[in-house]
Amino acid sequence: MCPRRAEDNSYNARDMEGVQSAGTLYGRVAERLVSLMEGGTLRPGDRLPSLRRISRTEGVSLTTSLQAYAMLEMRGYVEARPQSGFYVRRRASREAGEPVTVVPPRGAAHVDVSAAVARVLRSAQNPSLVALGAACPSPALLPSRRLARLVSSIARSGVAETNSYSFPPGRLELRREIARRAVDWRTSLTPDQVLVTCGATEALTLALMATTRRGDVVAVESPTYFGTLLILDALGLRAVEVATDPRAGIEVDDLAVALRRHKVSAVIASPTCQNPLGSVMTDEAKRAMLTLIARHDVPLIEDDVYGEAFHGAERPAPAKAWDRQGRVILCSSFSKVLAPGYRIGWIAAGRYHDRVMRLKLATTLATPALQQLALAAFLRSGSYAQFLKKVRRAYSDQVARGRDAIARFFPHGTRVTQPRGGFLLWVEMPRAIDSLRLADEALTAGISIAPGPLFSARGQHRHCIRLSCGEAWTPVLDRAIETIGRMADSHASRR
Amino acid sequence: MCPRRAEDNSYNARDMEGVQSAGTLYGRVAERLVSLMEGGTLRPGDRLPSLRRISRTEGVSLTTSLQAYAMLEMRGYVEARPQSGFYVRRRASREAGEPVTVVPPRGAAHVDVSAAVARVLRSAQNPSLVALGAACPSPALLPSRRLARLVSSIARSGVAETNSYSFPPGRLELRREIARRAVDWRTSLTPDQVLVTCGATEALTLALMATTRRGDVVAVESPTYFGTLLILDALGLRAVEVATDPRAGIEVDDLAVALRRHKVSAVIASPTCQNPLGSVMTDEAKRAMLTLIARHDVPLIEDDVYGEAFHGAERPAPAKAWDRQGRVILCSSFSKVLAPGYRIGWIAAGRYHDRVMRLKLATTLATPALQQLALAAFLRSGSYAQFLKKVRRAYSDQVARGRDAIARFFPHGTRVTQPRGGFLLWVEMPRAIDSLRLADEALTAGISIAPGPLFSARGQHRHCIRLSCGEAWTPVLDRAIETIGRMADSHASRR
Repeated sequence: MCPRRAEDNSYNARDMEGVQSAGTLYGRVAERLVSLMEGGTLRPGDRLPSLRRISRTEGVSLTTSLQAYAMLEMRGYVEARPQSGFYVRRRASREAGEPVTVVPPRGAAHVDVSAAVARVLRSAQNPSLVALGAACPSPALLPSRRLARLVSSIARSGVAETNSYSFPPGRLELRREIARRAVDWRTSLTPDQVLVTCGATEALTLALMATTRRGDVVAVESPTYFGTLLILDALGLRAVEVATDPRAGIEVDDLAVALRRHKVSAVIASPTCQNPLGSVMTDEAKRAMLTLIARHDVPLIEDDVYGEAFHGAERPAPAKAWDRQGRVILCSSFSKVLAPGYRIGWIAAGRYHDRVMRLKLATTLATPALQQLALAAFLRSGSYAQFLKKVRRAYSDQVARGRDAIARFFPHGTRVTQPRGGFLLWVEMPRAIDSLRLADEALTAGISIAPGPLFSARGQHRHCIRLSCGEAWTPVLDRAIETIGRMADSHASRR
Repeated sequence: MCPRRAEDNSYNARDMEGVQSAGTLYGRVAERLVSLMEGGTLRPGDRLPSLRRISRTEGVSLTTSLQAYAMLEMRGYVEARPQSGFYVRRRASREAGEPVTVVPPRGAAHVDVSAAVARVLRSAQNPSLVALGAACPSPALLPSRRLARLVSSIARSGVAETNSYSFPPGRLELRREIARRAVDWRTSLTPDQVLVTCGATEALTLALMATTRRGDVVAVESPTYFGTLLILDALGLRAVEVATDPRAGIEVDDLAVALRRHKVSAVIASPTCQNPLGSVMTDEAKRAMLTLIARHDVPLIEDDVYGEAFHGAERPAPAKAWDRQGRVILCSSFSKVLAPGYRIGWIAAGRYHDRVMRLKLATTLATPALQQLALAAFLRSGSYAQFLKKVRRAYSDQVARGRDAIARFFPHGTRVTQPRGGFLLWVEMPRAIDSLRLADEALTAGISIAPGPLFSARGQHRHCIRLSCGEAWTPVLDRAIETIGRMADSHASRR
């Protein structure tokens, strides 16, 4: 009954259909080598051609060959042995490889993924399901009790205050705490530059309303957060998808191509702890992206919702940290590390601030004072830093367990991300597997998962799924992963 | 120092510039008679021409003349004396007349009133100001303490529940209570037909997003709630304004003209307790409006936010009560009678339900569970009916005191609505008065008011203001009205 293991290194050649690395020269060399490994020409333990030889056969420089091998090493395909060369790696037992960047089609597409998304979210509210679909952190991991006590005491002591409209820009107490936190991310914000919203979703909606008009083209990551695609659909916008590396985030070169080929009105991206990949752009890449958008005079809408959920000790700076021209619209919330149920987000919209404030006033008028004041009190109390350490450790642990279970139970050829933040895993299965059908079958077995096409404006990523590890790991989750793995395996063998 | 009193009945002829009654035949006759009174041709105590004579001179039927006289009687211009005829009324001391319907220009206009609105709302949050501008009910009048206790206990007992996403359609507990309340308004709703929103503002936004596209024309009342105009502006919609009677609400005949002349995508109106007029359409007029929109295959977005604040014992049914085809999108909230600070509204979108639900998911994702559960508990407790009685009495009393103060302190020729619900007064001053300048001056004296042009897509109603009587009446409010009256008077005499 047990499916073949993911650590089995005999790749299926079909896995590489359409898979390549950002169109760079070294990416193409690496891609060719991966196809040799997947085709069985190069087997685990085999020595790869020397750098000199590969340079000659591929017609590239020695540096390019070295870059290609370095990338393959980073991705776990090959290992360097001193004085000897590069060898096809025997994967460590119980570890699946990582997916590689998918270059999406070039056209701009209208977006509609809402019915499927609604189903995933509905399933999150069904307590009888194992919820691996929606990205919901468990309230048990969060300081929910502490926050509830704050809410309770503020409700009683501030009866009039909490039953009055809190008009934009929102409560100063909270905006001040947000500006203070930003210092830790090397980002300079004043309370006046921050506007409180009904969650990051409203922040993203306002940012798009402020910078685009119906029919406009917006550049998005591929894969991207499905919520972004829902907003694009709601506002009648078209998406052009940009290749996004599972480790290093949006590929700036590919973004440059998109900006050249399309009249893009805004770029929307998650440079720090992307959903669904968990990727993080380097500081250099973030800066390069800012230079690029400045050249094209296009705003960057930066979704930083998982930024604080970075697994390391100190979170990387958002791109906003280097924004001197007010082109970056930073959107975030407290939903992924503190309070998903409180619906408090915020936006620092730079040069679009006034416009965003007008739109907020027009479309939802005000945000509840109670939750704003409770979060401000929690942030002010100083226990936030300590709590953050705890939740970062928990998320890192949970995704490690998720990866481990996937390696044990998913079909061979499955790859899974090594997220650098957040609690989401992006799983790339053999191409024969239809994640939409898999999601249906999983649901009948009492498990919800998020199928790959939700994360693409063009229904790409059909053989991928996103699994949320927002809950503390339990044997129930292990069994759920086993069940999905078994289903996926039967799909794979049906072909 | 005291300005001339409003009960002085010597009308200023300029007051009637552009003022007429909905373009009906009897309206035109009444208008002509009013101009005779205002011009001083007919003085208080004078007998009006007989019905027969007026029919002859105006070239209309006896019935039309009778309708004109009946309207003038209803509006307090004339009184009928048995066996004798109609006489120009000596206004009861300390009572200002009511405004009459203004027929707006026919074209569709782009909308932008946001800067001025933002100023009015900001002023509502400045505790050093006397806040007559924004429509904020005082938390002291509302069951704020009781609600705070509910919030507090729900936060503590439902820690996980209140810190989890509450995805659309929102909490069943609340939707069930809303459906139950609707029975009292002769409106049949199931919990499934109700969707919880972030206040009525989000409900109206979703309704417009679901039924229009950028550039479309929407029919609105004149004057209309400025929040509606903000949403139209935010969504790039154009407004065509429809004559709205200060007592009887939107004029269905005038709406028919608008629907014939423009390609209208949606009608947005407040048939019950309109903002700013406090008008209520008759059941017949509501039904006639439904027949009309069905004929033109256009949705009606019904803003019922003040419906529950009707001053009488039993509130009139919303137009939705007669909607058999799902064309009415009913939008409401708890902000005007229970909890402005809680930001909980709802929408029953009829045939547009699925679309609205998708848009809600896309643009704000979820609504806080805490406030939903607290309101549901309050509604379930049964004290709502009793509370509603109290708040209705309070609002009715407060607007009566406001009217009284206006009659005492505003320039002669001033007219003020007799709202049938809510806590807002619409004040029509002599034409020489510029309400925008008046609002500026009032602000320097520590008083915020809402100038008339905010309530029109075309900056109409420049000599009007809206005053909010959401607070329990105090001598401070009396003095504020006196101050504004004095300022208005100096405007009037400057001409």
